[in-house]
Amino acid sequence: MHILITGGGGFIGQKLARALAAQGRLRGAEISKLVLTDLGEPAAIEAPFEVVRLASDLSDGSSRETLFADHGPFDVIFHLAAVVSGAAEADFDLGIRVNLFGTLGLFEAARAQGNAPVVVYASSMAVHGGMAPDPIVDGVELNPQTSYGAQKAMGELLLTDMSRKGFLDGRGLRLPTVSIRPGKPNAAASSFMSSIFRDTMQGNLSNCPVDESYELWHTAPRTVIRNFIHAAEMDGGALGENRCINLPGRCDSIGAMIAAMTAVAGPEPATRITWDRDPVIEAIVNGWRGRVTLGRAIDLGFVADDSFEDSVRWFLEDDIAR
Amino acid sequence: MHILITGGGGFIGQKLARALAAQGRLRGAEISKLVLTDLGEPAAIEAPFEVVRLASDLSDGSSRETLFADHGPFDVIFHLAAVVSGAAEADFDLGIRVNLFGTLGLFEAARAQGNAPVVVYASSMAVHGGMAPDPIVDGVELNPQTSYGAQKAMGELLLTDMSRKGFLDGRGLRLPTVSIRPGKPNAAASSFMSSIFRDTMQGNLSNCPVDESYELWHTAPRTVIRNFIHAAEMDGGALGENRCINLPGRCDSIGAMIAAMTAVAGPEPATRITWDRDPVIEAIVNGWRGRVTLGRAIDLGFVADDSFEDSVRWFLEDDIAR
Repeated sequence: MHILITGGGGFIGQKLARALAAQGRLRGAEISKLVLTDLGEPAAIEAPFEVVRLASDLSDGSSRETLFADHGPFDVIFHLAAVVSGAAEADFDLGIRVNLFGTLGLFEAARAQGNAPVVVYASSMAVHGGMAPDPIVDGVELNPQTSYGAQKAMGELLLTDMSRKGFLDGRGLRLPTVSIRPGKPNAAASSFMSSIFRDTMQGNLSNCPVDESYELWHTAPRTVIRNFIHAAEMDGGALGENRCINLPGRCDSIGAMIAAMTAVAGPEPATRITWDRDPVIEAIVNGWRGRVTLGRAIDLGFVADDSFEDSVRWFLEDDIAR
Repeated sequence: MHILITGGGGFIGQKLARALAAQGRLRGAEISKLVLTDLGEPAAIEAPFEVVRLASDLSDGSSRETLFADHGPFDVIFHLAAVVSGAAEADFDLGIRVNLFGTLGLFEAARAQGNAPVVVYASSMAVHGGMAPDPIVDGVELNPQTSYGAQKAMGELLLTDMSRKGFLDGRGLRLPTVSIRPGKPNAAASSFMSSIFRDTMQGNLSNCPVDESYELWHTAPRTVIRNFIHAAEMDGGALGENRCINLPGRCDSIGAMIAAMTAVAGPEPATRITWDRDPVIEAIVNGWRGRVTLGRAIDLGFVADDSFEDSVRWFLEDDIAR
């Protein structure tokens, strides 16, 4: 069992790699090799199998060729690499190059292996918006109001069509905002949705650029890793004629999430949040949807979050205690 | 008012060009130049303005550059050029190259003009299928079951996103099967949906590869041309946050359409239809949807067909008498 994780240096890639190392097996077989690739060399992880860490730009055709020639074929590919929402909105061409062409190039490389590998594709709830109903239900037209969302939706169409053709065995997961994300703030418009918790619990100030009534659809890192592994383990045919699903999450307002943090971690962190509105961030995140009904994904065995209090506790256990 | 029609050698491109020639004006301004481009040089049309006819491969970057450098900027672009359904299903890479990259390249060339031109994009009802409900209603998730449909849906996402960004002013029309199409059979899986009428009314045999109970969502060439011109004339902002719509049509079974032909043209043509099933064609067209509710497009001023008898009469008037 050879596995590739693109975006393997990111926090989801790293947590996923550690989870795979802990279980040692995937799809009923022992994992013998895991390749982590990202623009910069991913951090090391301890594992009972070979781990290769590669700096590689997957939007570049010759880099992809080298990766697959030197380390392929893969049995399972987790495709997490992407230009994030704020960056794709600021630079349309960069987003098209990486999120559309890079994804197509990766899917083509997977197809060229000839073994129809399992491909788990990180899509995003940012595919929803615009004229879609509130709440979002399964089966509504994707009407993204960001370039990131549009590019992710195009990747979904490729994934489903290339699965239908038998080129690969795709499973597309529309990720809620993942909070609390460890690490540093980044160019994602959703960056604050983690940093107002993560940074304030570690004694630092952090700005919230939207009103506390803003509602978001979110999930914890632990939950999303469980769901990624379930996506790889499940029978792809169970997804039917559409390989892409709304991943479960929770709807909470920023204010309710702050109250949950206070309940778990005491009153200090909330006092470190500043409240300077940012119209650029607001324009992007107001195009997203906070309310989504649980449906198809639950029927398919994916799991939802019970509370944001859990997310706060898990962050303290997994990312601070570590 | 400078206008570009890609796929200008096809029957819709030619009929659209003649309709523009007849009205002489578009969007309140006199048409001064019309450029028709296709893989082969489009046929001449008579017009009260300059008509340029160009053989050009729009999936090739340097061909696009030459076209726009020599003949742009355009105020209105009708993008009809595409690899049709049967050919895109048989050759995935060709479909990606022309229908996805060619469309993106054309939209990028339109953006580079700097004038945010009106772009009327020919999408297709083939974007619907799979897990979408029956009948198709406005707002259902696009779940194409052909590569052609997937590629058209990706073009829709680009059109809406690039309109949102102000790069162009897009209007995307999901065309029903256009019947009765003049000319010769082609590689579209829907080719028989015209030829069993067109060819038999002209004294030739024609094969129907599906059962007569097969229902299709169809529209007449006259109707689709009216709707293309309406799409160019209307305020793009009226489309809201999703620039793409299901174009009106009619649902009829093949058997009902044959009865309509018989009512208008007598009993002889129907006797020239042969009935050899073709599993390749059936696999494609069974992925399409015959039943669609009229909704948003009617509210926006687009028009529907009243009967297939009209379509038969119009074919005899427009394409045989001509």
